Amino acid sequence: MLDYQTLKSETPAALRQVIREGHYGSHTAGLGKGALQANIVILPADVALDFMRFCQRNPKPCPVIAVSDTGNPMMTTAGQKIDIRSDVPAYYIYRNGVMTEEVTDVADIWTDDMVAFALGCSFTFEHALMAAGIDVWHITNNTTVPMFKTAIPTVPAGPFSGSLVVSMRMIPKDRVEEAKAITRHFPLAHGAPVHAGDPAEIGIKDISTPDWGDPAPELEGHIPVFWACGVTPQAAIQNAKLPVCITHKPGHMLVTDIPDDAEVPIINLPNSI
Amino acid sequence: MLDYQTLKSETPAALRQVIREGHYGSHTAGLGKGALQANIVILPADVALDFMRFCQRNPKPCPVIAVSDTGNPMMTTAGQKIDIRSDVPAYYIYRNGVMTEEVTDVADIWTDDMVAFALGCSFTFEHALMAAGIDVWHITNNTTVPMFKTAIPTVPAGPFSGSLVVSMRMIPKDRVEEAKAITRHFPLAHGAPVHAGDPAEIGIKDISTPDWGDPAPELEGHIPVFWACGVTPQAAIQNAKLPVCITHKPGHMLVTDIPDDAEVPIINLPNSI
Repeated sequence: MLDYQTLKSETPAALRQVIREGHYGSHTAGLGKGALQANIVILPADVALDFMRFCQRNPKPCPVIAVSDTGNPMMTTAGQKIDIRSDVPAYYIYRNGVMTEEVTDVADIWTDDMVAFALGCSFTFEHALMAAGIDVWHITNNTTVPMFKTAIPTVPAGPFSGSLVVSMRMIPKDRVEEAKAITRHFPLAHGAPVHAGDPAEIGIKDISTPDWGDPAPELEGHIPVFWACGVTPQAAIQNAKLPVCITHKPGHMLVTDIPDDAEVPIINLPNSI
Repeated sequence: MLDYQTLKSETPAALRQVIREGHYGSHTAGLGKGALQANIVILPADVALDFMRFCQRNPKPCPVIAVSDTGNPMMTTAGQKIDIRSDVPAYYIYRNGVMTEEVTDVADIWTDDMVAFALGCSFTFEHALMAAGIDVWHITNNTTVPMFKTAIPTVPAGPFSGSLVVSMRMIPKDRVEEAKAITRHFPLAHGAPVHAGDPAEIGIKDISTPDWGDPAPELEGHIPVFWACGVTPQAAIQNAKLPVCITHKPGHMLVTDIPDDAEVPIINLPNSI
């Protein structure tokens, strides 16, 4: 296994190769610098239209940045030679709505009727926050962002429904408005926050015990700010009780070749000015 | 029939009712002020996932702002009581890739296996250009924007492929960069232009004879600027040769209830700050 520090200078393509060959299986925050990272959902074609509708109706948690052809594991519009069966550091397998396995390769589970979706990720706007001098605690401390189920409902589509999942970052009180304005410019990376302040107002009982990721401390002079999170589909998948569904492990993302400041999330567009 | 000037002060809901009842069948530029307008594509469910993939891969011409449930003509996330069978001023019917009829209501063609898509429209960014003091000739002169097929290919998905359609506006030479910057902020309304300058470079032979819409004159001190256009799917539909497909008539759009400065194109989101 290669370590996190060694991989920081690798290109997205080189990083994916290391992951594909099984030499790295940890989180991707801070890796593949300048490239869009993505949440992954892989599910059977017979529910793919409903899932894509769910994403369209919930664009803050689920901004679609790439979709495979049915049965084709190559994500051709997101990068060179991206094989979605092997290029994510760690996957969760859900069966009938229950997470049953964590694996580093899904080639033996992938079938000809599956469709893979890549959804935008908060790593993109975190770079922008840090560039503005706003510290992002979980990155500075090399942990995974804390994520929580909320009481906010999503807009349903077919079998997909459930509550919004959010990620939390502590922001200095006097910079919350600035953080809102900065992140609103990233519609493919969850956009502006959905809540700032009292966690109880959106149904979060205890911010020291996240549902996914690692806890982050409350900081003096800061308030907790909550952004829609790409783990939201995993809650919807639990509700949909599909026979089989594959996702990334939270924090362990697909690193694409799309620049994170691209106007549209497609590589090699024929015309673009 | 009610006339255009009378309708300028109507709300989107009132305007849709007038259209639904058959009292207005002309273009919608400048109507439903402040509300997002949309291109419409209605097609059979068995190609709807491919069509939605086509839109995702070609987000500049085809920014999806709403999708109906299969067989349900109500576009619930785009506005109150929007019935897509009657709320567009004029429709084109395509059969086997050929435009065969122009009608003002499609209730007798709609079937239980159809899915309706609403795609963002350039009217949104035109308001922003005009607010910045850049004249938009076809609006000032109450005509439909000129639209052209280009030699730029789209990214295909399933049966959908073909060349990009663009709309043209003459922009003062010294304000082209500003026009690019303004429109880039509207990813749900085609974003930044795809070309500025010589039409021949993108395969347009004669800008005085548009493929859709009305001609607009070349203006002294201006250059032609071309934006991706929501009529692009109509070219893809011609290539796909579907048994039946319904679109809006170019320029004759669905007026939604979504504010044109909304962060996401969904009405009544449970939480939004």
